[in-house]
Amino acid sequence: MRVKLFDTTLRDGTQREGVSLTTEDKIRIARELDALGVDYIEAGFPASNPKDMEFFEGFDASELDHARLVAFTRARRPGGRADEDPAVTLLPRLSAPVACIVAKSWKMHVEKVLRTTPEENLESIRDTVRYLANAGKEVIFDAEHYFDGFRDDPEHALAVLRAAADAGATTLVLCDTNGGTLPTELKAAVERTVEEFSGYPDVEVGIHTHNDAGCGVANAIVAIEAGATHVQGTINGVGERCGNCDLVTTIANLQLKMGLEVLDDERLAKLTGTSNYVSELMNLTPDTHRPYVGRSAFAHKGGLHVDGITQDPSTYEHVAPEVVGNVRRTPVGELSGKNSIRQKAEELGIEAGDVTGILSAIKQREYEGYHYEAADASLALLIGRTAGEDRPLFELETFRIISEKRAGGETTTEATIKLLVKGQRVISTAEGNGPVNALDKALREAIGPHYPELREIHLSNYKVRILDEHRATAATTRVLIDSTDGKRVWGAVGVGENIIEASWQALVDGLEYGVSAAVTSHKG
Amino acid sequence: MRVKLFDTTLRDGTQREGVSLTTEDKIRIARELDALGVDYIEAGFPASNPKDMEFFEGFDASELDHARLVAFTRARRPGGRADEDPAVTLLPRLSAPVACIVAKSWKMHVEKVLRTTPEENLESIRDTVRYLANAGKEVIFDAEHYFDGFRDDPEHALAVLRAAADAGATTLVLCDTNGGTLPTELKAAVERTVEEFSGYPDVEVGIHTHNDAGCGVANAIVAIEAGATHVQGTINGVGERCGNCDLVTTIANLQLKMGLEVLDDERLAKLTGTSNYVSELMNLTPDTHRPYVGRSAFAHKGGLHVDGITQDPSTYEHVAPEVVGNVRRTPVGELSGKNSIRQKAEELGIEAGDVTGILSAIKQREYEGYHYEAADASLALLIGRTAGEDRPLFELETFRIISEKRAGGETTTEATIKLLVKGQRVISTAEGNGPVNALDKALREAIGPHYPELREIHLSNYKVRILDEHRATAATTRVLIDSTDGKRVWGAVGVGENIIEASWQALVDGLEYGVSAAVTSHKG
Repeated sequence: MRVKLFDTTLRDGTQREGVSLTTEDKIRIARELDALGVDYIEAGFPASNPKDMEFFEGFDASELDHARLVAFTRARRPGGRADEDPAVTLLPRLSAPVACIVAKSWKMHVEKVLRTTPEENLESIRDTVRYLANAGKEVIFDAEHYFDGFRDDPEHALAVLRAAADAGATTLVLCDTNGGTLPTELKAAVERTVEEFSGYPDVEVGIHTHNDAGCGVANAIVAIEAGATHVQGTINGVGERCGNCDLVTTIANLQLKMGLEVLDDERLAKLTGTSNYVSELMNLTPDTHRPYVGRSAFAHKGGLHVDGITQDPSTYEHVAPEVVGNVRRTPVGELSGKNSIRQKAEELGIEAGDVTGILSAIKQREYEGYHYEAADASLALLIGRTAGEDRPLFELETFRIISEKRAGGETTTEATIKLLVKGQRVISTAEGNGPVNALDKALREAIGPHYPELREIHLSNYKVRILDEHRATAATTRVLIDSTDGKRVWGAVGVGENIIEASWQALVDGLEYGVSAAVTSHKG
Repeated sequence: MRVKLFDTTLRDGTQREGVSLTTEDKIRIARELDALGVDYIEAGFPASNPKDMEFFEGFDASELDHARLVAFTRARRPGGRADEDPAVTLLPRLSAPVACIVAKSWKMHVEKVLRTTPEENLESIRDTVRYLANAGKEVIFDAEHYFDGFRDDPEHALAVLRAAADAGATTLVLCDTNGGTLPTELKAAVERTVEEFSGYPDVEVGIHTHNDAGCGVANAIVAIEAGATHVQGTINGVGERCGNCDLVTTIANLQLKMGLEVLDDERLAKLTGTSNYVSELMNLTPDTHRPYVGRSAFAHKGGLHVDGITQDPSTYEHVAPEVVGNVRRTPVGELSGKNSIRQKAEELGIEAGDVTGILSAIKQREYEGYHYEAADASLALLIGRTAGEDRPLFELETFRIISEKRAGGETTTEATIKLLVKGQRVISTAEGNGPVNALDKALREAIGPHYPELREIHLSNYKVRILDEHRATAATTRVLIDSTDGKRVWGAVGVGENIIEASWQALVDGLEYGVSAAVTSHKG
C-alpha cells in the first residue's frame, strides 16, 4: 500500500514560536504543497482560530489538483452532543472533504485535563466521528499522546482507536504529542497496533511525531516499517517547541532509502525548492544544514572528501543531490586542495589557469583571516585577478564617515565619498543608520548612473566576525556581505583591523561581482 | 558498562561550513567540555591542519580534569611504514594520551580512493595501530563508511575491525560517514558487530553517526541499545554537510529516557549552558527549537497546554526542563521568569524589590532585541535601575567618530567625546582601529583620571549579531561586549539600528558595571 503524505504545515506548523502566516501566504503554501504532490493538506483549526476560518472561507477545496483539504477539530465536549457542539458542526459547512479529529488516548489526560471518565471520552469520540462521517466527510482520527497512553495502559489506548474505527474513521493516527518517545519503543507500539487492526480492511494506521528527543523523522520511518501507511509532518519540521517530523526529509527517506514510491521523480526534485519557498514565506532563515535540501547538505569541505567525490560521488554522498533538486558544492576553505579550486572555477565559469598560484593566494589570504566558503563572489574575483582579469568599477580617491551622538539623541551617521568612475570625478554624501549603510548609499549614489545594473542589486545579509576575539575591539575583523539581484545570491568577504576597511572590501567585491555577472548573463 | 561520551566538536564539528575557530576559542571549548564531563575530547587532525597543530602545541592534555584529549589521524599510506609516515609519527610527540585513527572499511573506497588491495589496507591498519599502541597511546579506531561497507561486504568490514583490535585498538567505532543509513538497518549491523567482538573482553564498540537522513541522534541511540558503549558526536550537532550526531540531545536521551547514567545531575543541568556557549563561540545563532536546550523547547503557546501544564507538567512535557538547565516558558503566564530574576538578583548581590516590574522591563527589552543570557552586567544594571539605583559614571554631551580612507592607504578612525564627569567638563580625542575602539579609548581618556579602577578593566570580547539579517546593513544590530578585570569576566549588551549606538550602550554598561563591582569588592 502506498504511504500517504499528510502535511500539517498550515496547522501544527504554525504553532512554531514566531511564525504567523497571512491567509494569502497560507493559500500560496497550499498550492505549493499540492504541486509537490502531498495527499492531504491540513490547513487549520477553524473553530479555534478566526484566521484559520478565513482560510477555509476564502479557499475552495476544489482548487487543489491532487491533495485533499483537511479541517482539524477536537472531539465534542464531555457530556455534550456532537450535533450541538459548534467546533464539530462547523465542519460540514466547509468545502474541505476531510475532517481530522483529535481526542485523548492517555487516561491521565482524560482524568486530569478533560476531567471526565474513560467511558464518556469514548462516547465523545464515537459521537463526533459518526456525526462527521454521516455528514460525508472522510474522517481521520488523531489519537493525542498515543504512545504515553499506550505505555500507561495499552488496552485503554487501543479502545480509544477502536471507538473511532467502529464509528467510521478510516485513518487512525498515533500521535507522539510530547515528542519524547524513542524509536524502539515507538516501533513496538505501532507493530502491536497495526496487528490489532489487521481485521479492519478499510482502516489505515498513521503516524504523527514531534522532535523533542531529536527523533521526529526516525520515529516516522520506523512506524512505517512497522506497518503505518500514513505519515503526518510539516515542511522543514516547523512546529511547536522542537518542531514536528520534517516531511521533506521523510519523503526523501521513504523514496530513496526504503524504495517506497511516494512522489514521481519530477516532484521529488521539487523538494529543495518547496523547502526554501516555505522558509521564505514563513520568514525563517533556511537551515543550511537541513538533510537533503540544505545549502550545505552536499557541500564537501575536507580535501580528502573532495578527492573522493572526484573519483566517484557515491564515495561521500548518500544520494545524488539532483534527485531532490539540490546541488553539489565544494566550498573552498582551509581544508581543501586543488581539485576544489578547479571545480569551483568551473562552477563559476572561469578559466582557472594557474591553480597552484591561486591556491597559494587563497592560503595566504586565509592566513590573514579571509574565509571564502561563503564568499563565492570574492573567490571568483580573486581567481579572476590571479588570471590577470581585473575590472574595478571605479577608482577611489577618499571616503569619510562621520557618526555623531548628542546626549539623549539618536546616533546619526553620514558618509562622503570621492572617486573616479569611467574617467569622471564624483563626490557624493549620504546618510545611513550605520557607517556601512551610509557608505553603501554614498557609493551607489556616486557610481549608480554609470552602472544601471546596480539598481537590481541589494545587500541581503551582513555578518561580522571578530577574529582573535580576546583582543576585543582591537582585533581583526572579518565581514561577510551577501548581495542579491532577486534571482541569485552571492557572498563577499573583507578583512581588516578596522571594521570599516573590512566592510568596504566586502561591499566593493559584492557590487563588482554583481555588475560583472549581470554583464556576463546579458552577453550569454 | 557506562556509555563513554566522545566529543568531536573541535575536529569533525569544525568541518561545518562557515565555522572557523581560533586556537583561543578551541581552548575555551575544550575547558567547557571538560567541565560538562565528557570522557574524550577530540581536538583536531594536527597532521593535516596547522591550526590544529597550534592547539596541540599550546594546550597540554594534563590541563583537563576528567576528559582525555584525543588527536586524530589517518592510517599510514598504502605501501609505506607507520614509523615513517609523518601523519602517524607526529602523535607520540603530543601530550594527548589518546589517538583516534581513521581507516577505510568499505571495499569500494579501498579500491577507488586508496587505490590499494584490501590486504594492504588491513596491513596499514595493523601497522598504524600497533605503532601508536606501542608508543603508549590509547587507540580508538574509526572505521570509515562502516555501514556502507557492511552492506556491501560484511566479512570485509568485520575483518577491518578485527585487524585494528588484534593490533591493540581498544575501541572500534562504527562510522556512518555519509550519514544516510536508517535506524533499523544500522541497529542490525551494530548487533552483529557487537556479537562478533563478544570474545574480546577489552574491546568496546562505538558509534559515530551523521545527520544526512535526519537520523543522527536516533542512530546513535539504537546503536547503544544494540550494545555499543561509546558514542561520538558534537555539541549542537555541528559538522560537515547536515552535521554530526548532536551529543547534547543524545546525552539527555541516554540519561533521561534510557536510564543510562552518563553525567551526574549537576552536570546534566549544564547542558543548556554548554550548548549556548558553543554556539556563541562559533558565532552561530542558537537554534531556538533544538531538543532539550532550545529556547522554545519548553515553550507552551496554547491555552489548553498551559492549563494542562498547571495541572501537571507531564501532560505536555516529556521531561522537566530544569534537569537539562532549561526553563519552561509560557508566553502569557510570566510564571517562568520570576524565580530566575530573584535568583539572578541574589547572585548579583542586588535587592530585587519589584520583580514584576523588572520582568516586564526585561520582556520589553527582549522584544526590542536585547538578550541577557550572556550579558549579566547589563542585566544587573537593569535590575538596579528598576530598583532606583542608577549611578552613571558620567554624563554624555556628544561624541563624534570620523573614519577616513585615502586611495591605497589605511583606513584611520578617530573619536572625540565631550562629557561631564564628577561635575567637570572634559573633551578628549583618541585614534583607534575602528569606530568602537576609538570611542573606547577616548572615553577612557576622558573619565580614567576619575576612576582609577578602569585601568584594570579591559574589553575581552566583541561580538556583533545582525537581527533580521535579510534587512542587511539597515537591520537592527545587537552588540555583546565582554569585559574583564583579569579575575572575572562580565558581558554587556547593546541594541540599535545603528551599530555605533548599540556598541556605545554595551561599552558604557560594561565599564559602569566593572567600576561598581570594583567598588563593591573594595568595600567587602
